[in-house]
Amino acid sequence: MTHPPDEDGYELWLRYSSPRDPEALLRLRQQLSAVVTVGSSPTLAAASAELRRGLGSLCGRAIPAGMDPTVPGAIVLAASGAQVLNAFGVAEKLHGLGREGFVIQAKADDDSPDSSLASGLWGGRTLIGGVTDVGVLYGAFHFLRLLATGHDVVDISVASEPKLALRLLNHWDNLDRTIERGYAGFSLWDWQKLPDYVDPRCRDYARACASVGINGSVLTNVNANSLVLTEPYIEKVAALGRVFRAYGIRVFLTARFSAPIELDGLPTADPRDKDVQAWWRRRVDNIYRVLPDFGGFVVKANSEGQPGPQNYGRSQAEGANLIADALAEHGGVMMWRAFVYDHEVPEDRAKQAYSEFKPLDGSFRANVAVQVKNGPVDFQPREPYHPLFGAMPKTPLLLELQLAQEYLGCATHLCYLAPLFKECLDSDTFADGPGSTVARVIDGSLQNHTLTGMCAVTNIGNDRNWCGHPFAAANWYAFGRLAWDHALSSGDIAEEWLRQTFSNDKRFVDPALEMMLASREAVVDYMTPLGLHHLMAVGHHYGPGPWVNEGRPDWTSVYFHRADAQGIGFDRTPRGSNAVEQYPEPLRAELADQARCPEELLLWFHHVPWDQPLASGRTLWQELCARYQRGVDAVRRMQSSWGDLQGAVDAARFVHVENLLRIQEQEARWWRDACVLYFQTFSKRPVPEGYEPAEKTLDEYRALRHYYVPGISNPFVPKAPRLPAKSR
Amino acid sequence: MTHPPDEDGYELWLRYSSPRDPEALLRLRQQLSAVVTVGSSPTLAAASAELRRGLGSLCGRAIPAGMDPTVPGAIVLAASGAQVLNAFGVAEKLHGLGREGFVIQAKADDDSPDSSLASGLWGGRTLIGGVTDVGVLYGAFHFLRLLATGHDVVDISVASEPKLALRLLNHWDNLDRTIERGYAGFSLWDWQKLPDYVDPRCRDYARACASVGINGSVLTNVNANSLVLTEPYIEKVAALGRVFRAYGIRVFLTARFSAPIELDGLPTADPRDKDVQAWWRRRVDNIYRVLPDFGGFVVKANSEGQPGPQNYGRSQAEGANLIADALAEHGGVMMWRAFVYDHEVPEDRAKQAYSEFKPLDGSFRANVAVQVKNGPVDFQPREPYHPLFGAMPKTPLLLELQLAQEYLGCATHLCYLAPLFKECLDSDTFADGPGSTVARVIDGSLQNHTLTGMCAVTNIGNDRNWCGHPFAAANWYAFGRLAWDHALSSGDIAEEWLRQTFSNDKRFVDPALEMMLASREAVVDYMTPLGLHHLMAVGHHYGPGPWVNEGRPDWTSVYFHRADAQGIGFDRTPRGSNAVEQYPEPLRAELADQARCPEELLLWFHHVPWDQPLASGRTLWQELCARYQRGVDAVRRMQSSWGDLQGAVDAARFVHVENLLRIQEQEARWWRDACVLYFQTFSKRPVPEGYEPAEKTLDEYRALRHYYVPGISNPFVPKAPRLPAKSR
Repeated sequence: MTHPPDEDGYELWLRYSSPRDPEALLRLRQQLSAVVTVGSSPTLAAASAELRRGLGSLCGRAIPAGMDPTVPGAIVLAASGAQVLNAFGVAEKLHGLGREGFVIQAKADDDSPDSSLASGLWGGRTLIGGVTDVGVLYGAFHFLRLLATGHDVVDISVASEPKLALRLLNHWDNLDRTIERGYAGFSLWDWQKLPDYVDPRCRDYARACASVGINGSVLTNVNANSLVLTEPYIEKVAALGRVFRAYGIRVFLTARFSAPIELDGLPTADPRDKDVQAWWRRRVDNIYRVLPDFGGFVVKANSEGQPGPQNYGRSQAEGANLIADALAEHGGVMMWRAFVYDHEVPEDRAKQAYSEFKPLDGSFRANVAVQVKNGPVDFQPREPYHPLFGAMPKTPLLLELQLAQEYLGCATHLCYLAPLFKECLDSDTFADGPGSTVARVIDGSLQNHTLTGMCAVTNIGNDRNWCGHPFAAANWYAFGRLAWDHALSSGDIAEEWLRQTFSNDKRFVDPALEMMLASREAVVDYMTPLGLHHLMAVGHHYGPGPWVNEGRPDWTSVYFHRADAQGIGFDRTPRGSNAVEQYPEPLRAELADQARCPEELLLWFHHVPWDQPLASGRTLWQELCARYQRGVDAVRRMQSSWGDLQGAVDAARFVHVENLLRIQEQEARWWRDACVLYFQTFSKRPVPEGYEPAEKTLDEYRALRHYYVPGISNPFVPKAPRLPAKSR
Repeated sequence: MTHPPDEDGYELWLRYSSPRDPEALLRLRQQLSAVVTVGSSPTLAAASAELRRGLGSLCGRAIPAGMDPTVPGAIVLAASGAQVLNAFGVAEKLHGLGREGFVIQAKADDDSPDSSLASGLWGGRTLIGGVTDVGVLYGAFHFLRLLATGHDVVDISVASEPKLALRLLNHWDNLDRTIERGYAGFSLWDWQKLPDYVDPRCRDYARACASVGINGSVLTNVNANSLVLTEPYIEKVAALGRVFRAYGIRVFLTARFSAPIELDGLPTADPRDKDVQAWWRRRVDNIYRVLPDFGGFVVKANSEGQPGPQNYGRSQAEGANLIADALAEHGGVMMWRAFVYDHEVPEDRAKQAYSEFKPLDGSFRANVAVQVKNGPVDFQPREPYHPLFGAMPKTPLLLELQLAQEYLGCATHLCYLAPLFKECLDSDTFADGPGSTVARVIDGSLQNHTLTGMCAVTNIGNDRNWCGHPFAAANWYAFGRLAWDHALSSGDIAEEWLRQTFSNDKRFVDPALEMMLASREAVVDYMTPLGLHHLMAVGHHYGPGPWVNEGRPDWTSVYFHRADAQGIGFDRTPRGSNAVEQYPEPLRAELADQARCPEELLLWFHHVPWDQPLASGRTLWQELCARYQRGVDAVRRMQSSWGDLQGAVDAARFVHVENLLRIQEQEARWWRDACVLYFQTFSKRPVPEGYEPAEKTLDEYRALRHYYVPGISNPFVPKAPRLPAKSR
């Protein structure tokens, strides 16, 4: 089997591969002759450079920068106010769009007969018009996307603007370049050599982000290090910011609440303390002096050991407002995370963020957005939507997603996450009656906010292919596309990504698309089916540990699955923790009713007897086993589908995916067998027929230890007796 | 200024760039038609693949694998025993070489008149013959090197074999992928995905190593982790070993002396304990079962906190022999490090290794080699050679070098190390009269050893260009070339590397070569001139800290420079620590005599009065200042030379080097000013005229703190008061 030339994945979806069909290639060459930029700015230069790079690669010949916007085959770049927009009749259309909006308009020459179009001899031109320069850049990337996915340039007429103002990546990158929950190598930010040397890869990162409309990058871990707020680091941050700026990307940082104490020895970090307030103003002023378009902060406070306003008896709102006030005059945004819970609070962990934040609605400054994870626990393979969405009408809420597959197989498992994201976005909060989706909450249309956004914990590291698994970049891509337009479908996004990343060949695209779309459900099935959640091993989030029952209760597995002789699942009905009360009617009643609760969330909300019959006719126990098996089977189908695609993609990426699927299949079995064997100690029921025997015993699974799993520090620390002192 | 296309440095010196001169290109095309392999093995396949890749790239057209060794332009690959060797008349020549040796022989066709050669119409063929398959591989790489550096294929007649048996890289890589003293990113070994997925980069690593004759790779840090000896990790190690095998590279590991306790709960690690002996045999047998060509171990014992035989009152030799016995039946080598010192021992740190190891000469097993650093302290910019060389005639000694510039500016400073290496290799130990160089000690010719070798702590990480600084790969290259043939000159090696890495254009090569050859002396001058050593900042080895005087005395700077009101330098004459006694006569007397001691080692061996006149006519104080200034000036000359080369190399690498030289110039000034200001507090003398004023005050230099410097863990740990408990 012959393959196309090896690729290492570095180019991501920006490969701009020439069509293999000679006619299609000829047509591109006829249609595209020169890139003509009206005006000048770093952003317009970036747009032009990208077009020349992309069109040159698509056409297999250099596309020059031209001067004359009337030449046939010209691609004309212009922002609002340019005369040329009138010639294309788009000035009006552009007027209706926000500052990041763009139009792309093909225009036949007035004197060219229709027949020349039909013959493929295109005498026309294409305008890429932006409301501002960055709109032009987005239009350029969109134009390239259309061509790279096989659209005909003659047909293009697009007007587009983002539905959300903030479209951000959260890098949980530490200053030592390790990444919390990073599975694709180490941080791109080489703090040691910044600001004097900026790795060219940082520009390629910005290109990739801009190509899908991402407009902000939070450089540092939410478990924050105050050192980044010192002047030497701000210089380093600014060096990155200057590279990103041309691509419309603003830099954000995480702020550690106790920084005034840690950096300058203040006796307190109390938000009501005048010196503390002055400290934040001074620090923020310093940042803006060096980086005038600094975006703002993300803060994780009073959660998982981070300091916060509650150390001083102040509310989360007071804490947020302290820093928001320092940012306000510079236009900076304060993103305050609602991911809070406390093992000393007896309340169901899934309820605590709502309990704590809902009463604060209305008490935040205008430049504060509360950042809410998609579900109420923590980035599990499946969760119900977070009940805060819709419940804080006076507060802008940002949706926080996770691209790093912390609980979904890290960068080793193929798992396309857009279906998970869409599940949340499409959830109905009923906040203003039916149709009040999470998407409409976060885009501001439901509750009339202009501070809107989505952010995602990235899966990006310094692995050559950026995200580790050759398919993992699809999640970066999908996040950007959905943040731009949450109405796009998972399938359409996946297809776009596949065509640009691998091939436009339908014989490749169709089966690969099927793999991607089935992949997230496969992970749910072999890890946490039927609404189970938080079953992972201790100390790291890799591999199964349903037996985990030591340490903080709300970090154990038994806290969440509650398996016993009667059944399994967390009773969150009024008979249990009553988490359902945080959801609006009519959803609340549906979730609270075991018979009506969707099966995929059944054990999230209910403790269900082992012999309870389910929709399939199987008992709960049988269904649980069947789902675990189904998950493994789905991975094997992926292996088989991928095997059939040998030759359709290059050997390097083919083998990479093939090997990782082999690991995924092993680990799917590991999850299945460890969980089924463990739950069987409660159900006392036989595993149904047709189910493969487990490879190891439960004790063997429990005895497995994994050290140095990426994304977290879990060193091998042998329990060894003290050695005798050295003697000679 | 136009540049050649951007390169990222990944290809190292294996770029195989076509000659720009059309005649030279035509000549190559005429001379090279097909690669014909006689016999088959993974190693021959690797040789053939590399030749086709390299010759294809050099010729700008595909070079096929052929079947007929008689076709004009054939490059014939064959190992001993093949019939074709006779046709080239090289069978005899090959017979005289060791198993890794090779010949390359061009042969005109018998019937081709001389005139056709003169006309450039080469009807001949080229043989690359190896004693074994790996010899063929080395020959293939050598042939490519000759062509890539501009040699004419018609002229080639080479016979070569390595002077040393072991030519090893030491990776100080931890299992969490951090690298101790690693300045070019993180470990290439992705333990998490091994053995199921092996990054293709590992093969490219093996190619690069093999191209310069490196035949072993010690995968793990000498500060060892016993986990690597467990079965799951041995499987991972073996996966790498299988990739390396085709390239003649064997895998080695570091062993932690207390592993029997840590892994299996043995009550002791005493080398005389039968269970401990059995434990090592069992573990080693397990390794060889999985990896039959495993190379052996490196052990750091009873040094810097590592456990060792002295914890049980046993000698270093007994410790080495314990593990050597387990390895012996498999042909494995035990490399035992002589880098030992103890702050509880009052003796001069520079003397301790000699004191401890010399008495052990003759008590090591035959498969033990004692691994000795080039100098008696620790990889300083300049040290005298280690006095153990020549002093242990009955023991094979390996020379340990460091490519990672732990004390020479990390991967930020341009510093070509071959002159440092050669300085050691060419040092005369007088062990068997004049001419008893270190090179002759380690190649076994002086004291009749066959277990011979050199190893080097690598500077390789997962940075795209492998070694961080675009010039740092020259040190990897030079190490391999010198390990193959220590008689090569620094200049010849540098020129080879430059031609392959950048360009054959003399207008580039000459000035770049001059930069490289001057670079190490520049570092000595701006960091530690005149024999000074160990002046770096505390906690990491980055930046100056001549004032460091806290903690372990033998880790302070004041221990080594001993500056006082009278003068500066460590008196190692008989009036002082008498370290000179470890050196043989006549060297001993020369070093002990301040008037005869080479100036570049003056303060290593002598405490010299500030006003002592030196060869220049300047006083010591004046000379010290002059040398520091000279170091800075040398960096500025490098900047200027490099600036002149814009356009001669691609823009990406040009800018990278340019930016790093800017950092180097800043840091050279930092070293100069911090050291001169500090030493001035003792000398009380004015800085001579013509010396630039320091940018900061001494107190400001002393107050600088650097966190998260690569290569070591030095986190920012703020001294902050405990926060009040959370309350709501």
